[in-house]
Amino acid sequence: MALSAINTFAGNPLDRAGDRRNDPDWLAEQADNPDALAMVIWQGKPLVEETNTGPRLAWLALKHARAVVPDRELFLGLWNDAPVFAVEVEGPVDPSAGPLQGLGGFPEMREAAAILPGPDAAMAGTAKSLFDWRARHGFCSACGQESETACGGWKRICAACGSEHFPRVDPVTIMLAIYKGGDEPRCLLGRQAAWPAGRMSALAGFLEPGETIEEGCAREIEEEAGLTVTSVRYHSSQPWPFPSQLMIGLFAEVDSDDARPDQTELEAVAWLTRAEAKACLEGTHPTIKAPPPIAIARTLLQAWVDGFDV
Amino acid sequence: MALSAINTFAGNPLDRAGDRRNDPDWLAEQADNPDALAMVIWQGKPLVEETNTGPRLAWLALKHARAVVPDRELFLGLWNDAPVFAVEVEGPVDPSAGPLQGLGGFPEMREAAAILPGPDAAMAGTAKSLFDWRARHGFCSACGQESETACGGWKRICAACGSEHFPRVDPVTIMLAIYKGGDEPRCLLGRQAAWPAGRMSALAGFLEPGETIEEGCAREIEEEAGLTVTSVRYHSSQPWPFPSQLMIGLFAEVDSDDARPDQTELEAVAWLTRAEAKACLEGTHPTIKAPPPIAIARTLLQAWVDGFDV
Repeated sequence: MALSAINTFAGNPLDRAGDRRNDPDWLAEQADNPDALAMVIWQGKPLVEETNTGPRLAWLALKHARAVVPDRELFLGLWNDAPVFAVEVEGPVDPSAGPLQGLGGFPEMREAAAILPGPDAAMAGTAKSLFDWRARHGFCSACGQESETACGGWKRICAACGSEHFPRVDPVTIMLAIYKGGDEPRCLLGRQAAWPAGRMSALAGFLEPGETIEEGCAREIEEEAGLTVTSVRYHSSQPWPFPSQLMIGLFAEVDSDDARPDQTELEAVAWLTRAEAKACLEGTHPTIKAPPPIAIARTLLQAWVDGFDV
Repeated sequence: MALSAINTFAGNPLDRAGDRRNDPDWLAEQADNPDALAMVIWQGKPLVEETNTGPRLAWLALKHARAVVPDRELFLGLWNDAPVFAVEVEGPVDPSAGPLQGLGGFPEMREAAAILPGPDAAMAGTAKSLFDWRARHGFCSACGQESETACGGWKRICAACGSEHFPRVDPVTIMLAIYKGGDEPRCLLGRQAAWPAGRMSALAGFLEPGETIEEGCAREIEEEAGLTVTSVRYHSSQPWPFPSQLMIGLFAEVDSDDARPDQTELEAVAWLTRAEAKACLEGTHPTIKAPPPIAIARTLLQAWVDGFDV
């Protein structure tokens, strides 16, 4: 697998400076750098501006962002030596109708990811994951006291008990089950009841402690579709900022096509030949709508159409 | 990749019953089942007994375990319909010198994993990860109030703010960097200053929000050894219960052999041909000791010797 960012939210171009961001003096220097930039996040949505070449993240000088958004700052990394930060606006009022008027708007992150250049989506997704983590981790899970941010937002420290807390990354297996026992190979899609009409996607589920990737994949397919997995092949991965999953994209061969949707996670399933999957991707399938382009599920489906095999 | 458990702590044979364990009535029935079994964990160490066929986890009837260890119970799953639990003994006093006298001893988990059958190590590791998580997550990270255990130990709920908290699984990339530009391909090992003399292992590091597996792998190699990764290939994965990592085993091709250990994570590195790696694994290398058998790093090194290529 080459390192090119084949999945949306991959391809963050920043040097995270993971060693140096632990140094408060170095961080303060970065913030004082007149070239320091900040993106703005409000309710998990990025500030996006229209430019001659299409939508882009709207960057503010950090000192300007600080004047408008005095709190909730995050060091994202270095971009050709320029320090890059994100600031989060709190509260229910859309800041693009107030202090940030004229600078752009706040589309939902999924919508933004679909229209922004890849690096912009990746940086915005990273910031969203960190801010979401902070919103749910203001207190020490070990002792219940308020914790404090450190390392530019990448760690929280509890002064009361000394515990250190790091951002969560929750691994999720997401997979196309493949059955080769029929006239031609077919892949399995499923749909959740809450999805838009016709939408189907790959099966997926959170990995649990004590599981390998392969075991988690097999468990999910067994739980959701009642099928036994005989082998698993890794395809690619994706950071997914809703709030902070690591999507691990897989193909899994199964020993039967007798799929039984569990009716809790899945209400229906469908087996697709490569030709049928291609029709889904092209929008010409009579009933099934493919996952959207930002989803790794669509990458997997495209790989299946292109001949990737388990 | 077949589903066979090639790494230690993989191969947990239990049906986790992920849907049913959410039902308190069903869980109570399982605990009342006279066939219900419990392993015992104390300070992260499993109760192990000697048998005619070697060391095994020592299983207690759950009702007996409950009499001795009245608190801290975890539902692990079903083993051929028999409910399997783990109980954790608190406090500093070795219970094998007290209430559990004559039932076995408590070796360190790494030592236990090296001598137990694979399924026993996998179940014990899963229990350790869950108990470690609970020990560090008694309070709601969102509001600071005490949270309560649910779903047999697989969830915590905050009555004060309604937040739900799930066990952490922290993805870690662990990789052999491979350089093919010399006379023959070589793989990179590194050593941390705190390790036993001669010990070297694969490079590794925690994945961060906003990264793919491939990007995290490339960042770690750049940070720790100053090398640029050109491609990444997935090999296998391992649950690592210290306290709850998902080790993602990779091979990464690099474009130079000019490795510069960062002197914080790594104090030294070495490039090994396949023949030299084989000598390490066989204990005949003059200076370098291979990682221990329970580590996925050793699996990767063995795969390299066996011809796995990036």
